[in-house]
Amino acid sequence: MNGLQISIRGLEMPASPIRKLAPLAFSAEERGVKVYRLNIGQPDLPTPEKALDALRNIDRKTLEYSPSQGYRSLRKKLVDYYDRYQIKLSADDIIITAGGSEAVLFAFMSCLNPGDEIIVPEPAYANYMALAVSAGAVIRTVTTTIDEGFCLPKVERFEELINEKTKAILICNPNNPTGYLYTQKEMNRIRDLVRKYNLYLFSDEVYREYIYTGSPYISAMHLDSIEQNVVLIDSVSKRYSECGIRIGALITKNDEVRKTVMKFCQARLSPPLLGQIVAEASIEGTEEYSRAVYEEYVERRKCLIDGVNRIEGCYTPLPMGAFYTVAQLPVDDAEAFCAWCLTDFCWKDGLTPETFDFSGHKTECKGETIMMAPAAGFYTTPGMGRDQVRLAYVLCKQDIQRSIFLLDKALKAYGGAISKAGD
Amino acid sequence: MNGLQISIRGLEMPASPIRKLAPLAFSAEERGVKVYRLNIGQPDLPTPEKALDALRNIDRKTLEYSPSQGYRSLRKKLVDYYDRYQIKLSADDIIITAGGSEAVLFAFMSCLNPGDEIIVPEPAYANYMALAVSAGAVIRTVTTTIDEGFCLPKVERFEELINEKTKAILICNPNNPTGYLYTQKEMNRIRDLVRKYNLYLFSDEVYREYIYTGSPYISAMHLDSIEQNVVLIDSVSKRYSECGIRIGALITKNDEVRKTVMKFCQARLSPPLLGQIVAEASIEGTEEYSRAVYEEYVERRKCLIDGVNRIEGCYTPLPMGAFYTVAQLPVDDAEAFCAWCLTDFCWKDGLTPETFDFSGHKTECKGETIMMAPAAGFYTTPGMGRDQVRLAYVLCKQDIQRSIFLLDKALKAYGGAISKAGD
Repeated sequence: MNGLQISIRGLEMPASPIRKLAPLAFSAEERGVKVYRLNIGQPDLPTPEKALDALRNIDRKTLEYSPSQGYRSLRKKLVDYYDRYQIKLSADDIIITAGGSEAVLFAFMSCLNPGDEIIVPEPAYANYMALAVSAGAVIRTVTTTIDEGFCLPKVERFEELINEKTKAILICNPNNPTGYLYTQKEMNRIRDLVRKYNLYLFSDEVYREYIYTGSPYISAMHLDSIEQNVVLIDSVSKRYSECGIRIGALITKNDEVRKTVMKFCQARLSPPLLGQIVAEASIEGTEEYSRAVYEEYVERRKCLIDGVNRIEGCYTPLPMGAFYTVAQLPVDDAEAFCAWCLTDFCWKDGLTPETFDFSGHKTECKGETIMMAPAAGFYTTPGMGRDQVRLAYVLCKQDIQRSIFLLDKALKAYGGAISKAGD
Repeated sequence: MNGLQISIRGLEMPASPIRKLAPLAFSAEERGVKVYRLNIGQPDLPTPEKALDALRNIDRKTLEYSPSQGYRSLRKKLVDYYDRYQIKLSADDIIITAGGSEAVLFAFMSCLNPGDEIIVPEPAYANYMALAVSAGAVIRTVTTTIDEGFCLPKVERFEELINEKTKAILICNPNNPTGYLYTQKEMNRIRDLVRKYNLYLFSDEVYREYIYTGSPYISAMHLDSIEQNVVLIDSVSKRYSECGIRIGALITKNDEVRKTVMKFCQARLSPPLLGQIVAEASIEGTEEYSRAVYEEYVERRKCLIDGVNRIEGCYTPLPMGAFYTVAQLPVDDAEAFCAWCLTDFCWKDGLTPETFDFSGHKTECKGETIMMAPAAGFYTTPGMGRDQVRLAYVLCKQDIQRSIFLLDKALKAYGGAISKAGD
């Protein structure tokens, strides 16, 4: 011990359920195991060729700072983009951020004081919790359940949590991790709550392009009479398969909030320049790309959901949007199972579970396994989601099919391994 | 008023002295005025051709997330780079961040609790203050003075400020904004303080390549027996003229700190992918580039410092490193003067100050002016630096010479304008 403190925030900060098993996955890969990653929303789809061309044809001499708010040319293209979704903006309403993550952080930092509370339906994108810790804000959750298909809880459940410290509601729509899409009725209920208690509504809508049911997409920006309360969180990461460029946006009609957010933007100088070039090239003239991507996800969703529901003891509702689903597995502790899949399980064709060497981690081994995100990390309520995992359907159909096969084999083998350990 | 709060942080967050006059500069440019920007450390030098080639030859299909810690290949290149400066690291000691700014923020977030104090010699890089506000930490300053060439204050001055909330000392070496370079003796004094009070030492050394006096560069990493206390802040922005790519690093031998910083890194998923590609290509085989850049700054420094000191009533010490200097001007309120340079002053050759239209902002006008950063924003002590500006010598010599000319003309005209206004 060196006697130096680690911050309270650092101690409270939850480890990312999406990334905490990453070291195990790297070890498995080092042993020669092929790992199918269903844990992270990293699409395997190509970035639009146009966007890559923008890099290949770069004619700058100096890669200089961009404006703290982001390039106006990019913001103008976004204005046109949102217009297609009946979201009416000016370029001034838009602040470019380093991914949607920075937009969430700056929204929290600008609108909330330490100790202020945000109500979030859970399971929720785990990094909201981590970013709230950064801002000293407190996430209070209303639980949605797999049995009810993760629909929005009753207004009363929100009102039970509302007190003088409650300053915001945060939703993700379509939802990560559940794939749920809020209906007009549900959005109106949120609007009424926001209005009644004069709360901020942080609305993360980065998956708007992926809605599979024909249901309408209701943006927080479409809700009447709460214009000043809404802060929209967005990102180009998922829609153009360019998660690495770190380009998102914070959008609000509230001048005071924007002015404050800009101070945080100036403190970090500017959003990534190269990402902005790529994002700008991605937005226009990529309708065909977007359609193809959409159709691909329709197929993948069907493939994953059907597959999971066919495995004995597994269940997942049909997600309406995004590219995730939360699935219930026949295990007591999904995190232990997910870790076990990376450390002890390794499938080799031609070997039956009975003859398979479960201590494959100790030897060089060319087999296959899967990586999943334990869902407990998406809940704040203790005990919730312990038998659930989040699965992203971002791999090609063939890989999803193989993953389902492996999940089935792993579950069967895990039962055997567990009872053996219990002997 | 909509009754929604803005966070305390938002209200406390100081506006960036480097960027707060930006809207005035944009307006001037819209009127057709050429603005010489001495306010910001944005070198006009080209990014290494090798780095741009790395973009032009990009052969990726998908711009995917990179690891939260940054690519190992980049971290390994950095290990070799630091080795040239006798800083011995392993790739695991290095965490890639979105610019030096994110490294500072994560250092504060990970090591400091809200209310904890950091001692910083002032004038200091203004964003330290803003980033401290983000983390709820408090910057306490020991003042260095232009009359003493901005050398490190006596140990007693630090000790006067040390109390149970003091958790860190933050230095920037070579210094932004003063260009001061700490001597071995001064660094030893800092080391002794850090050891005696068991403080963190945050050391921002992004300008290590720019030392003009032949004096040795003493890194905080060179100091003995405080290895666990040191957090090094770095960035490739300035040394390869690629500020826009947003690639920096947080480096420490302290495992606990690194583990905690990684949680914040995971919350924002990953540092910019494209920036990492550019940075990696910049590090190796650019010795010739670095030498040419260095020689250019030697010339520019001479040009700026000689020029400023030749203007009546102006004074600046000779900076030993970085590419900034703090200059004293013969005005009462440098911020008002800096703003006036952008709104009212506009030089046209062939017109003498007497015939010049000082209300140039009301008409279309093709002239020239300068933008400087008022230095008061680099101090926290009220009243300090009011007659000072920070000047960056990042423009070509010809533009620096022209800027000096304009500064001289502006100061003369300002006297006239002020006394006219006082009539």
